[in-house]
Amino acid sequence: MRIVVVGGVAGGMSAAARARRLAEDAEIVVLERGEFVSFANCGLPYHVSDEIPRRDSLLVQTPESLRAALNLDVRTGHEVVAIDRDARTVTAVHTTPAGVQETVLPYDALVLAPGAATVRPPIAGLDLPQVHTMRTVPDADGLRAVLADGARSAVVLGAGFIGLEVAEALRTRGLEVDLVDLAPHVLPPLDDELASLLDAELRAHGVRTHVGVAAEAIHATGPVAAEGESTEPEGADRPAAVEVRLSDGTALSADLVVLSVGVRPDSHLAASIGLELAAGGAIVVDGQQRTSDPHIWAVGDATAVRNAVTGAVGPVPLAGPANRQGRRAADAILGRVTPEREARGVLGTAVVRVFGLTAAMTGASQRALQQAGIAHHVVHVHPGHHAGYFPGAEQLHLTMSFAPDGRLLGAQAVGRAGADKRIDVLATALAAGMTVDDVAELELAYAPPYGSAKDPVNMAGFVAQNVLDGTLALWYPADLEKVLDSALVLDVRSRGEFASGHLPGALNVPHTELRDRLDEVRAAADGRPVRVHCASGFRSYLAHRVLVQAGMDSANLSGGMLTLRAARPDLELVRA
Amino acid sequence: MRIVVVGGVAGGMSAAARARRLAEDAEIVVLERGEFVSFANCGLPYHVSDEIPRRDSLLVQTPESLRAALNLDVRTGHEVVAIDRDARTVTAVHTTPAGVQETVLPYDALVLAPGAATVRPPIAGLDLPQVHTMRTVPDADGLRAVLADGARSAVVLGAGFIGLEVAEALRTRGLEVDLVDLAPHVLPPLDDELASLLDAELRAHGVRTHVGVAAEAIHATGPVAAEGESTEPEGADRPAAVEVRLSDGTALSADLVVLSVGVRPDSHLAASIGLELAAGGAIVVDGQQRTSDPHIWAVGDATAVRNAVTGAVGPVPLAGPANRQGRRAADAILGRVTPEREARGVLGTAVVRVFGLTAAMTGASQRALQQAGIAHHVVHVHPGHHAGYFPGAEQLHLTMSFAPDGRLLGAQAVGRAGADKRIDVLATALAAGMTVDDVAELELAYAPPYGSAKDPVNMAGFVAQNVLDGTLALWYPADLEKVLDSALVLDVRSRGEFASGHLPGALNVPHTELRDRLDEVRAAADGRPVRVHCASGFRSYLAHRVLVQAGMDSANLSGGMLTLRAARPDLELVRA
Ligand SMILES: Cc1cc2nc3c(=O)[nH]c(=O)nc-3n(C[C@H](O)[C@H](O)[C@H](O)COP(=O)(O)OP(=O)(O)OC[C@H]3O[C@@H](n4cnc5c(N)ncnc54)[C@H](O)[C@@H]3O)c2cc1C
Ligand SMILES: Cc1cc2nc3c(=O)[nH]c(=O)nc-3n(C[C@H](O)[C@H](O)[C@H](O)COP(=O)(O)OP(=O)(O)OC[C@H]3O[C@@H](n4cnc5c(N)ncnc54)[C@H](O)[C@@H]3O)c2cc1C
Ligand SMILES: CC(C)(COP(=O)(O)OP(=O)(O)OC[C@H]1O[C@@H](n2cnc3c(N)ncnc32)[C@H](O)[C@@H]1OP(=O)(O)O)[C@@H](O)C(=O)NCCC(=O)NCCS
Ligand SMILES: CC(C)(COP(=O)(O)OP(=O)(O)OC[C@H]1O[C@@H](n2cnc3c(N)ncnc32)[C@H](O)[C@@H]1OP(=O)(O)O)[C@@H](O)C(=O)NCCC(=O)NCCS
Repeated sequence: MRIVVVGGVAGGMSAAARARRLAEDAEIVVLERGEFVSFANCGLPYHVSDEIPRRDSLLVQTPESLRAALNLDVRTGHEVVAIDRDARTVTAVHTTPAGVQETVLPYDALVLAPGAATVRPPIAGLDLPQVHTMRTVPDADGLRAVLADGARSAVVLGAGFIGLEVAEALRTRGLEVDLVDLAPHVLPPLDDELASLLDAELRAHGVRTHVGVAAEAIHATGPVAAEGESTEPEGADRPAAVEVRLSDGTALSADLVVLSVGVRPDSHLAASIGLELAAGGAIVVDGQQRTSDPHIWAVGDATAVRNAVTGAVGPVPLAGPANRQGRRAADAILGRVTPEREARGVLGTAVVRVFGLTAAMTGASQRALQQAGIAHHVVHVHPGHHAGYFPGAEQLHLTMSFAPDGRLLGAQAVGRAGADKRIDVLATALAAGMTVDDVAELELAYAPPYGSAKDPVNMAGFVAQNVLDGTLALWYPADLEKVLDSALVLDVRSRGEFASGHLPGALNVPHTELRDRLDEVRAAADGRPVRVHCASGFRSYLAHRVLVQAGMDSANLSGGMLTLRAARPDLELVRA
Repeated sequence: MRIVVVGGVAGGMSAAARARRLAEDAEIVVLERGEFVSFANCGLPYHVSDEIPRRDSLLVQTPESLRAALNLDVRTGHEVVAIDRDARTVTAVHTTPAGVQETVLPYDALVLAPGAATVRPPIAGLDLPQVHTMRTVPDADGLRAVLADGARSAVVLGAGFIGLEVAEALRTRGLEVDLVDLAPHVLPPLDDELASLLDAELRAHGVRTHVGVAAEAIHATGPVAAEGESTEPEGADRPAAVEVRLSDGTALSADLVVLSVGVRPDSHLAASIGLELAAGGAIVVDGQQRTSDPHIWAVGDATAVRNAVTGAVGPVPLAGPANRQGRRAADAILGRVTPEREARGVLGTAVVRVFGLTAAMTGASQRALQQAGIAHHVVHVHPGHHAGYFPGAEQLHLTMSFAPDGRLLGAQAVGRAGADKRIDVLATALAAGMTVDDVAELELAYAPPYGSAKDPVNMAGFVAQNVLDGTLALWYPADLEKVLDSALVLDVRSRGEFASGHLPGALNVPHTELRDRLDEVRAAADGRPVRVHCASGFRSYLAHRVLVQAGMDSANLSGGMLTLRAARPDLELVRA
């Protein structure tokens, strides 16, 4: 049995390694066009920042170590250029001192793990040598060389996961950094009201963000800083190398540009042999990672997966799924197939560090739910990441979406600590098909340094239960104009909090005084509904319960001023 | 409607608060015999250590704040001494300047939340003034006073969660600390091979542990250090106040003793009125927290819960369950009953910090499974808490137990970082009834600072899958003597690792050389089974796969030398 794997990093090498463990006698050949296999793509930005100083650390395995441990035949510098489905062969080319050589390899099973390619939008000047990408070890080498050569400024195009990591890395290395995204906010998959927290963190660390604008053209304005051959005077005298023109007319000068506006499945080989592709070009596979050709499997960034929440089919370029798909493909090839594994969709759980903040998410974002037309509620809570009475509690911003029947649909969190933990828990709950009742009752590990007796996750569950059974009615930042127009805004924070900034026309009745001042509220409402809020939503929830039980039409601002100000960073408050 | 709550901390006050939110017009009276309500019991040890310097921080709410926010009638200093089920009244006594007063309060619904009491084993001298407990704010005040007065040494009786926290606190304050437990290791609910890691951490921080021994008697040997009235010379000249004699003959001198050998349900009131109790005295309740009297509910440490894994019925004295039970009792009293909430058992998820280590657990321990006669497997993995190539990865020790049908039964983790996260994820998986296949496929948030593409949790799932489908056969530390006796021990670590300490009679074949040296292994085995191991179990798993596919009888040491040495801390290795 000969298994040939195309692409020797996350998905491909996981398949090869697992295949060897299952079949000692199989011949397993891994063809990788690059110089490196099994490298830590995800670590590349941290090598650029020097947080991972040694490049070797990124090379998890080498062809030699894989030969020694797993008897794999790993061939770097081998690009597969053709596949013959009938003959069951692949053709790889390989540059040797004697010229380009071609190898034709027969296979019994073929695993395609070619990954993704950087999207190259139609921006003039993308081919300039100052324009970098961030996919491979040579890419990181190239960026480090330019940094060593004295680059002082960069424009990062694209503020997705990798763009954010690259912007942080370059800023950490002391560069002036402009970060540009066409989307209305950084990290587009994040809900708006959380993304603004990242934006503020980026700005606090000196990264200039430009959102809702496109890069239109890049022009060379200075000499190319080529590796090792700098003869120029160092530093401030040197003119910036390029100018990046944005759709709003801004012109950004920089020594380098990093293009990271997204990736697309690198499925041209699969396309060339007529394998079924999904819209967008990702390779269609079944639950066993098998393509439309029964002898060909595909895994990783090049494949289409079904989103477990929205049902949308497309690529989800993440390392965890790629690794596990590789393992599953090997299982399938070698006859280890468990039927349950077929049904699972992908949640797309992801996390990114942005300076001191963590942003994490699982399942569908609010936007994805809207786009998919899935009825849902969302709640916002802001608990500490551990007990408030224990020093160092950091406030979380946690959102949770759920269906009218209580089923979880998605969750996102931003904070300085503990965000990844809560999203991992909610990702597990989502995978299990849990409801908000289940989430309210989760038993999570509590001691003061780690959480709270009612963990933030439980808290989100409680609030959601209250929404579903009518104990709590919510209003949202998107309702603000309507609320200001036609309701009494009741601010139940303390007088001091109120004075430090409140909504126009709001009535201030601290929640501890509400029971005694109900008549005053009723009079001020004068027949209008009451829209109550506090800082986080907790005190105003207590107020809401008093109001509705006094017969008033009340709703509580989800997540309070914390969420409102994050959703509307430019909101002008009244001070007095 | 009048709701009377007995006990005003975790469970009781949660019930009262929730009841108010649901029923603005109910009369809600909370009777608390102590001076404080709603205090953070769990924070007390950290106040003793001074990590929480301000005592006020522990007072989450006061009678005044609860009156103001929730219109609760909270009466401290009121001890309920009698309940009349027929008349539906409680009698509370209250000391005033004019003497003891008795109040009789009628109720429509009564919530018992009296908590637990410290177990007082038959040790002579427990009533000495130098013997402290750690349950209440006055207890913490008392310990702080003795510390301020110059106490230099302490014996902590009981090395459970609270005993460990107290030992750490006192050591942090500079005391000599002896920690004593009758169980064979510290933190008895932890699996043996993890508990030794805590023991080592305690010793590394200067806490002397004494396990498998009982305290038999405490004798006064010096003056009582009473609060504020120290007239003695400070420091080294003062004789220690007490001597603690242990069952092995050891005599420990100390200035103070903290008794924390466990708690028992404080159910004497419930017993006095004939409510149904479980063995051990915990109050029996249904899924709505209702006792055998339809007008009386009970919550928290005083109640019996069903262990979700073993089915054992008894108290689980943890704050999270107490808080949620309080909320559920209020729901039930006020008619908000959702049927699904009935069925859940309790997992007992818990966590404790021991200096730089975290120990966390959920579901059943290996011992609990054995005692319950539940067939199970266990796997041991030792991955880093985040990607190994990213600086600062800390090794986790993670164990996971599962049934022959794949259902999760329990998990435990010890490490310097990330242990609480993995146990929260596995607690969620357990609550969902997940199998090891589900765990293998969990999509957890991965970026280098947070985890690995194959998270430690996934890794445990993979290994468990391999055990269940026969890809992997394991042997355990408990098998060591038999293995040394009748098998070839094959150590596949590097020569350097082997030289630094190996099992007697082991053959060293580094895993990278195994395929070429199979004949040598076969000859050395000479018909005996091969029992292979490495440091963590990963390389020897690769070796195991080679061996079985070469037709040999092989098994792999679960968790490798890391687990073996943790299970057998006194094991003598051969060096050369
Ligand atoms: C900078 C960066 C940071 C990232 N950070 C994270 C993160 O924090 N978390 C996360 O989950 N994911 C992250 N990812 C994504 C993650 O690395 C990918 O999802 C994962 O590597 C996909 O695995 P794959 O096997 O599909 O593709 P890859 O790992 O990209 O491997 C594909 C390989 O195939 C080779 N190849 C392609 N075509 C051919 C051919 N015709 N012949 C031979 N070889 C070929 C390519 O050279 C490449 O080496 C990051 C990616 C990058 C680039
Ligand atoms: C030092 C310490 C550390 C802890 N750490 C943790 C931890 O890290 N994580 C965790 O999950 N749990 C921890 N716990 C356990 C947790 O605090 C309890 O499980 C929880 O408080 C139980 O809630 P409860 O309402 O049942 O009882 P309690 O919170 O103990 O409240 C019971 C109250 O009832 C009062 N009472 C009793 N009888 C009467 C009566 N007849 N009349 C009037 N009042 C009465 C008592 O005075 C007491 O104040 C810790 C406990 C302690 C003591
Ligand atoms: C490293 C790489 C080659 C995969 O290697 P792998 O051999 O599958 O090894 P891993 O370290 O992932 O270990 C997983 C295996 O070890 C086993 N294992 C781990 N710990 C074990 C233990 N204590 N006992 C027994 N088995 C153990 C697991 O069961 C699993 O084996 P299985 O798949 O046969 O069940 C591949 O993941 C890779 O190339 N990674 C780098 C690229 C990458 O992932 N990039 C994206 C992220 S930066
Ligand atoms: C504090 C204490 C009185 C309980 O108070 P509580 O009023 O239930 O308040 P919590 O802070 O727990 O908040 C939970 C409530 O706020 C709601 N809430 C929280 N954040 C919210 C938000 N952003 N929007 C709307 N509602 C919110 C929850 O839904 C829940 O209400 P519900 O039970 O009606 O659904 C009680 O837990 C206590 O005494 N604690 C200290 C003692 C203790 O727990 N000791 C052991 C641990 S150290």
